[in-house]
Amino acid sequence: MSDLAIRAGELDAADELAKLREQFVLDAASDHAADAAGVYLDGNSLGALPTAVPAHVADVVAREWGQLRIRSWTESGWWEAPERIGDLIAPLVGAAPGQIVVGDSTSVNVFKAVVGAVRLAGEGRDEILVDEGTFPTDGYIATSAARMTGCTVRPVPMDSLADAVGPRTAAVLINHVDYRSGRLHDLPALTAAVQAAGALVVWDLCHSAGALPVGLDAHGVDLAVGCTYKFLNGGPGAPAYLYVAARHQAAFDSPLPGWNSHVEPFGMRPEFVPVDGARRGRVGTPDILSMAALEAALGVWDGVSVEAVRAKSLALTDFFLECVQAYVPAGRVTVLTPLDHAARGSQVALRCADASAVMEELIRRGVVGDFRAPDVLRFGFTPLYLGFADVERAARVLAEVL
Amino acid sequence: MSDLAIRAGELDAADELAKLREQFVLDAASDHAADAAGVYLDGNSLGALPTAVPAHVADVVAREWGQLRIRSWTESGWWEAPERIGDLIAPLVGAAPGQIVVGDSTSVNVFKAVVGAVRLAGEGRDEILVDEGTFPTDGYIATSAARMTGCTVRPVPMDSLADAVGPRTAAVLINHVDYRSGRLHDLPALTAAVQAAGALVVWDLCHSAGALPVGLDAHGVDLAVGCTYKFLNGGPGAPAYLYVAARHQAAFDSPLPGWNSHVEPFGMRPEFVPVDGARRGRVGTPDILSMAALEAALGVWDGVSVEAVRAKSLALTDFFLECVQAYVPAGRVTVLTPLDHAARGSQVALRCADASAVMEELIRRGVVGDFRAPDVLRFGFTPLYLGFADVERAARVLAEVL
Repeated sequence: MSDLAIRAGELDAADELAKLREQFVLDAASDHAADAAGVYLDGNSLGALPTAVPAHVADVVAREWGQLRIRSWTESGWWEAPERIGDLIAPLVGAAPGQIVVGDSTSVNVFKAVVGAVRLAGEGRDEILVDEGTFPTDGYIATSAARMTGCTVRPVPMDSLADAVGPRTAAVLINHVDYRSGRLHDLPALTAAVQAAGALVVWDLCHSAGALPVGLDAHGVDLAVGCTYKFLNGGPGAPAYLYVAARHQAAFDSPLPGWNSHVEPFGMRPEFVPVDGARRGRVGTPDILSMAALEAALGVWDGVSVEAVRAKSLALTDFFLECVQAYVPAGRVTVLTPLDHAARGSQVALRCADASAVMEELIRRGVVGDFRAPDVLRFGFTPLYLGFADVERAARVLAEVL
Repeated sequence: MSDLAIRAGELDAADELAKLREQFVLDAASDHAADAAGVYLDGNSLGALPTAVPAHVADVVAREWGQLRIRSWTESGWWEAPERIGDLIAPLVGAAPGQIVVGDSTSVNVFKAVVGAVRLAGEGRDEILVDEGTFPTDGYIATSAARMTGCTVRPVPMDSLADAVGPRTAAVLINHVDYRSGRLHDLPALTAAVQAAGALVVWDLCHSAGALPVGLDAHGVDLAVGCTYKFLNGGPGAPAYLYVAARHQAAFDSPLPGWNSHVEPFGMRPEFVPVDGARRGRVGTPDILSMAALEAALGVWDGVSVEAVRAKSLALTDFFLECVQAYVPAGRVTVLTPLDHAARGSQVALRCADASAVMEELIRRGVVGDFRAPDVLRFGFTPLYLGFADVERAARVLAEVL
């Protein structure tokens, strides 16, 4: 057994979060993985299945839908699910209750948030900035939001974003963690810089929520969106969420004012009068089955601190980088993820010329990460269900493949 | 046994669709219904649970998510689900394959369709018409679409809609069946009238799809949207769908251009280049669990003709009206639903001064319809799982309550 493998065992033995692994299904699919133990390093794309989910979803289907049917909208709490689940996510991103609603996709929430931010910014500001390396859908949707609000969109490099924001800027849309490199952007400083210029900031938390502290309230963020199927383990295509800071809610003017955001949804009135609070971010009928899986999945966080998760995440990615350096021939891969803890999310990206073929072979051997064109191997580290032995093994298999 | 009860038995015995009832879970929730048999007349709000759904959803959760995880996006057909399920809905609304995508809520799809229609209508047209009695969310969203495209919205009474459409009209949004009265609007004639004026029509099929033939292609409809949790039995908040006629797809310009509608979604390119075909109506990551329930639910339609369903629907509502007339004291309720078959959907609405209290008592006795403010009792008739004995019983209980 190598020194690193021994270290891994010691680190796992000392890990106070190690017991959370039992709350996830981590069986490998036996037809592909050479080793049934497998290592799942794609939780930054689709989180593993929490063990509490299947029974809860089955109950919602068979009893709440099958037996109570329409009565479940009131009796099973379906109607309030978007706000109730929003309040379960709130502590994970540092938000007080009443500011988050769950529903729709991330893209649709980016549209609500960016248009909402432009309207909150008021007259005379006609420019939306997006980080140059943004996850593409954010840029596409921001462009549509700009077109429909008389603004223009300007992509700017993150390093000059604080300088680029100015008197014409209405809103700035930033990915908290870059999906490709895993770089963590400085939320407190950038929020302050954007607001100092009189603009509003919209943070996309897809790659940070559930992996590290966000501090939305503490840092005075204006609006935020995020998905729930990565580090929050809500299931494939689980509904996304929208955060509107309490101070902005009364003036928040959604471009998607559906009947669910009406002050009296069942009044069936022809005039739209928006409801107060987080519910103003709702649109149409919530997709209850997907919400049910998400709600059960969030139970895993009961008693777990995001700070502890962050500490373990950094320890895991540090250890992975150490193992890669020890096992992989020098020069075969380039580390894209910042070594500085303050600039690192919960993933490691390695540049590798033949990344596509390498990832295919890794997956065949049970080490599941993903490939991002043209040449990036991406490995996500979910502290809730990964241990240090997993990390050591993944690096070892990677070295074998390379 | 009354003459009507005897007639009901005869009608049920002759009903070629009667055996479909076995494909639904129709147990009453025992704590409320006085009679365990119950009659569910709210399938126009939330369809009953098809028996095929629980096992399919459980498999998607436990195996596709739990074991295959990220690989299911390709290996379990998750990625293509929106188009695949759209093609299952297509024959039910008279559409050839390749024109419907499933995803997002009805409200969000109304936004895509109305903005899309305004853009297709071209320059010089700056007015959107909506039917005066529209389901509220359609009106709210149309108003937002108008605001964001430089148009105005004008609600018009259905009887004068054909006259109201003119050279300034870009788009007309019409509910195929009025949610309150159950009135069926004349889709072929109105579509022709709108198009004769050079405008585009958007039909909302929420209360018609699955209950009667729609004939989208045959009547040359431009765009349509609908939900799937009513007569299509897809489950609470199941994803809605968008129809864009093949001839409009190349020019369809969605206001929600998410990464799922990009020609190369995993190319992660900064410029948006829309994909061809129905997929252009997609936005973000599809909510797979809700889609899984819908896909299993649509299996019920295998070998079932919409024409046969329509014939039974009219027979059921005729029989209900006959029973109500026979059992309920004259003058106690007013029938709001048109008696003319050509103008009737698959529901019966009765005006009744104390409708809220009456519906509460009906539900207590196991006859589940719904109440729409201020004074409407609404009963939906799903031919797939309702029989004539149910209908006779519902009218009898209604008479007892009144």
